[in-house]
Amino acid sequence: MATINDLSEGEIGQNRLVYSPTWIEAQKQVIQWALKLGLTVTVDDFGTAYMDVPGTDHPDQVIATGSHIDTVAQGGRFDGLYGVLGGMQAIENLLVTEGHPKETLRLISFSEEEGSRFPDTFTGSKHYTGAKINLAMTDPDGIHFDDARQTAVAQLNLPGVKHDLPDLPDTFTELHIEQGPRLIDHQLQIGLVTAIVGQRRFTITVKGIANHAGTTPMDERADALEMAVTLISQLRDQAHQLDSGLTFTVGEMHISPNTSNVIPGLVTFTIDTRSNDEQILDNFEQIIHQVVAQHQEPKITSTVNRWAKSDVTHLDDQLLAANQKTADKLGFSSTQLASGAGHDSQIMAKVTRTTMIFVPSIDGISHAPEENTGQVDLLHGVELLTESLHQQAY
Amino acid sequence: MATINDLSEGEIGQNRLVYSPTWIEAQKQVIQWALKLGLTVTVDDFGTAYMDVPGTDHPDQVIATGSHIDTVAQGGRFDGLYGVLGGMQAIENLLVTEGHPKETLRLISFSEEEGSRFPDTFTGSKHYTGAKINLAMTDPDGIHFDDARQTAVAQLNLPGVKHDLPDLPDTFTELHIEQGPRLIDHQLQIGLVTAIVGQRRFTITVKGIANHAGTTPMDERADALEMAVTLISQLRDQAHQLDSGLTFTVGEMHISPNTSNVIPGLVTFTIDTRSNDEQILDNFEQIIHQVVAQHQEPKITSTVNRWAKSDVTHLDDQLLAANQKTADKLGFSSTQLASGAGHDSQIMAKVTRTTMIFVPSIDGISHAPEENTGQVDLLHGVELLTESLHQQAY
Repeated sequence: MATINDLSEGEIGQNRLVYSPTWIEAQKQVIQWALKLGLTVTVDDFGTAYMDVPGTDHPDQVIATGSHIDTVAQGGRFDGLYGVLGGMQAIENLLVTEGHPKETLRLISFSEEEGSRFPDTFTGSKHYTGAKINLAMTDPDGIHFDDARQTAVAQLNLPGVKHDLPDLPDTFTELHIEQGPRLIDHQLQIGLVTAIVGQRRFTITVKGIANHAGTTPMDERADALEMAVTLISQLRDQAHQLDSGLTFTVGEMHISPNTSNVIPGLVTFTIDTRSNDEQILDNFEQIIHQVVAQHQEPKITSTVNRWAKSDVTHLDDQLLAANQKTADKLGFSSTQLASGAGHDSQIMAKVTRTTMIFVPSIDGISHAPEENTGQVDLLHGVELLTESLHQQAY
Repeated sequence: MATINDLSEGEIGQNRLVYSPTWIEAQKQVIQWALKLGLTVTVDDFGTAYMDVPGTDHPDQVIATGSHIDTVAQGGRFDGLYGVLGGMQAIENLLVTEGHPKETLRLISFSEEEGSRFPDTFTGSKHYTGAKINLAMTDPDGIHFDDARQTAVAQLNLPGVKHDLPDLPDTFTELHIEQGPRLIDHQLQIGLVTAIVGQRRFTITVKGIANHAGTTPMDERADALEMAVTLISQLRDQAHQLDSGLTFTVGEMHISPNTSNVIPGLVTFTIDTRSNDEQILDNFEQIIHQVVAQHQEPKITSTVNRWAKSDVTHLDDQLLAANQKTADKLGFSSTQLASGAGHDSQIMAKVTRTTMIFVPSIDGISHAPEENTGQVDLLHGVELLTESLHQQAY
């Protein structure tokens, strides 16, 4: 893992944006290790690497694991990478102790998950599962996705590597750090993921009238910030009352003219809501519209715009139950939980039976240089993955 | 007034920043009109023009009126300028109808009031009243106040103009637009100013912990924006309960990192409070500290910084009473009120008996191209000023 983490640009944190020189070197390194282990390697048009141990009895039955090696800017050492290298370790363990599997074992290193370079996310798993990707999109330097993709994929044509798009697997298991504090706070070793939360993002625009902070009496103001503060308080209370598991975040806010002695005339703020229950998200979306509608005034008007929506992804119940049994057998303390962050699994789950295994993140920090997981916890995750793949493929 | 308002830079609103070419031309125009009226003109080191009709009986007793001709960027046609040209009109009226006064009548066109070019305000009246001005301060283009001042003042040395700093006057009356909606809303013709409000400005800094909007449970967040919203709501309620005349404005707010899917870790916001009662301002300042202290949490800390303070300026009671009597006699509907904005009068009041006369601003708008006052209201103000100067100087 240190070898890959040496492949990063810049001074702070991990920087392996998709198709960048450090990403290309890292993906090449993953492929070379796989070839050395004797795995059959295929690379697709997007640079995703599929590394197979063909099954002796049912080679067409594919049991897959994996994740992505791209990072956010100034990211951590584990996000994504742990699922790729942990998967490779699990396969190596099985080859050494159990020999060749009856069904094909496949390790996948997706080209891109984070959406940190181009304005789309999960393009690796989306391409694998047949979703259309906008090849014309550009990064902040104006480089087209398609140009970057072709340049990078050409460099992955190493000796012994096939170029193709393999068939979809029968199951997919993703090993990942939690990126949140629930496991670490409750001193649990393993998290078994039931679902990946749905999320919706809104912008609320409040239009009042900018005016002089000294000469405008309090009862004659149309203060957009005062209204925004009222809306945020009420919406937060409503979110809390509706469901304690519903997350509600106002992360971005813009005030105009944003001067200490002028009453704000225009305020916009975002709402990010997530839940593992689509009905809760529907209800809360209705509440947002109701609360905003209740607060229209002659001189202050507010509008709601939903600009992002992803549905709840339910992962496979059978694989979850099997992993729970295995975790118990191995003596790991565990819980079942929903993932608040998105993962390649939410794309794979649309086309195949999918499950996820979480290990704790120290202090719940991720996507930051401080992201960390204890060595023992990392090994527990690989141990559970190994056993899960063994049950499925042998 | 149209002649001066033609002297403006840019397309939008009035732009006569102090010592700019348009300001120089406007101040020259004012001086030339004064000379044509037969007034004795003196210009001081800062470019303030003092235009006198010497008194026949007590030339050392000086009854002054005036205001400033500089504007904010994209300002209105009346702010400041009305008090200078209205004062000149009043003096002309008196010379025509009453002849020369017993005491000296002085019209003052202060060099600067708005603080729109250099980082100080009221530098014209401050200089006249003996306050020290930082000559080394620079405008956004890096031009030193002292260089701009010297260049401009040199151009005001017209034939017949003396260069000196006259003695302070015995009274000062400033005619001004209200810049707020109280007169226009109550359909009143004249406002008689009792005091200029004191104001205090604070910045509240709320430090929490930035974190992932999806993976951080609601009860484990240290959301700086949530805390800021709580503080703003509570402080606003407290301000309202304390005194309905206390103005409370949160005009400026900064959120970090200001991204829709990240819980804000740092929020700063400003508070602008004004009142014509120093005790109310003291009490509210204490409340700010109390409310912020009550909301300290292990993971969220808030601090208060007061960065601006100006005390309540009480204007002269006798002049106020006399103006009230005169307004009643002239049949003007009027009210006595505090000014929520600052004026040269608050500087002059430190050294001499000072009063102010307001006329209505349409829709309460000022410091904007839409700033406007009806022609009849403008004339009422001049009429009251004429009568007031007459009572004092004849």
